[in-house]
Amino acid sequence: MAYEKNRRRPPREDDGTLIEGRNAVLEMLRAGRAVDKVFLAEGARIGDVAAEARRYGVPVVTCDRRKLDHMSPTGNHQGVIAQAAAQQYVSLEDIFLVAQERNEPPLIVVCDGIEDPHNLGAIIRSAETAGAHGVIIPKRRAVGLTAAVARAAAGALSYIGVHRANNLAATLDALKERGVWLFGAEAGGSVSLYEAALDRPAAIIIGSEGRGLARLTEDKCDYIISIPLRGRVNSLNASNAAAVLLFETVRRRTQAD
Amino acid sequence: MAYEKNRRRPPREDDGTLIEGRNAVLEMLRAGRAVDKVFLAEGARIGDVAAEARRYGVPVVTCDRRKLDHMSPTGNHQGVIAQAAAQQYVSLEDIFLVAQERNEPPLIVVCDGIEDPHNLGAIIRSAETAGAHGVIIPKRRAVGLTAAVARAAAGALSYIGVHRANNLAATLDALKERGVWLFGAEAGGSVSLYEAALDRPAAIIIGSEGRGLARLTEDKCDYIISIPLRGRVNSLNASNAAAVLLFETVRRRTQAD
Repeated sequence: MAYEKNRRRPPREDDGTLIEGRNAVLEMLRAGRAVDKVFLAEGARIGDVAAEARRYGVPVVTCDRRKLDHMSPTGNHQGVIAQAAAQQYVSLEDIFLVAQERNEPPLIVVCDGIEDPHNLGAIIRSAETAGAHGVIIPKRRAVGLTAAVARAAAGALSYIGVHRANNLAATLDALKERGVWLFGAEAGGSVSLYEAALDRPAAIIIGSEGRGLARLTEDKCDYIISIPLRGRVNSLNASNAAAVLLFETVRRRTQAD
Repeated sequence: MAYEKNRRRPPREDDGTLIEGRNAVLEMLRAGRAVDKVFLAEGARIGDVAAEARRYGVPVVTCDRRKLDHMSPTGNHQGVIAQAAAQQYVSLEDIFLVAQERNEPPLIVVCDGIEDPHNLGAIIRSAETAGAHGVIIPKRRAVGLTAAVARAAAGALSYIGVHRANNLAATLDALKERGVWLFGAEAGGSVSLYEAALDRPAAIIIGSEGRGLARLTEDKCDYIISIPLRGRVNSLNASNAAAVLLFETVRRRTQAD
């Protein structure tokens, strides 16, 4: 009964990027297309898909078959649905190459667990318009480059690369080794935005909507910066905070001349 | 059939603020509660509700009865549903009083036709955290203070007043008469954000997501300002643009000391 009811729901927002069925998903993985997640129905005989997904480093989510029934665009999912990314991810090296080509100190936005596609899309859009060189998102516990994110980014995904980190802490270490300073954004941070040395090679790290920066991320940061607020609400929406930090960096880098 | 199917849909996001039935809606109007819109079914015998709504300046939308069937939380709408605001609106005078009490030059955000509740909510949140004195929205062709807007504002509606203008052009004239300078935000504006005299009494006017500033609004502005962009996408998300403009104003007003 619940099953029947679910099947009547309107198509999900991200249907355009859902690929279903054993062969289609296997082909997609082997072709190297960016896959955000593979959903497997509990008890389905598709161990080969799970193994292949893991081989390509794609998170596998095992769930009740009814969830797949509900997600499925056609109903013929055979126990497996893959969520494709709306855009291919880039490597960390690609991001540094863009900065090098433009002869600018790197400016990178790191999203530490953004879950709302509108927020991630808006952050990518702001990063592109601010002239940042790339965006980094984690592979797990965060939204990937879904169709909804692509829409909210308003075309920016065509012009700025997004790197998906297997292990965000390791990626932050890699940034530090490349001479990038890590500026974590957090309400009540010890350094005011206006005093932070954002003209250096910089990664601006935005925490998740509910929890802010993860403890491990915060520990890696060189500075915890905050936007001096003058109201009673103690934080900004994640994408609005990212925009303020990015454009203050732009102002500092361009108006100082 | 279509009717039956619609009735099975999950409750709408704004159900919490939908009041239905002739008497309930009449009482609500007469009690002076803020009503965003009254929906009337075509052919329903409720001329008294329509007259009363108009008397209180509440927009009346006449539509197919099936639309009301679909919106209705209980199914007993009797041909009339009112959408209450999640928060009472304030007067223009209230906004000036806040500025006066704080002994600050007025800082007001005007939203010229924002339609996405996430954007309006985020703008109200940013306005509050930036210490602005109030927000102005138009009565028509824009989202009001719905439950979704209240959620996106993350509590800010308790601390900053929102005025709903019957006629936005007349309200802009009233702002000018009170010595407030009108800064319209538009991609490709003639004045860079960094050169605008935002330390004066200021209203920052944000255009709608799709169309930007309305022609009539643009004509009233003293300055059309833009955020210098460095990417290929030619505009920011409306709430992100508002946040950048607001916090640059804060920086100018507080760091200049």
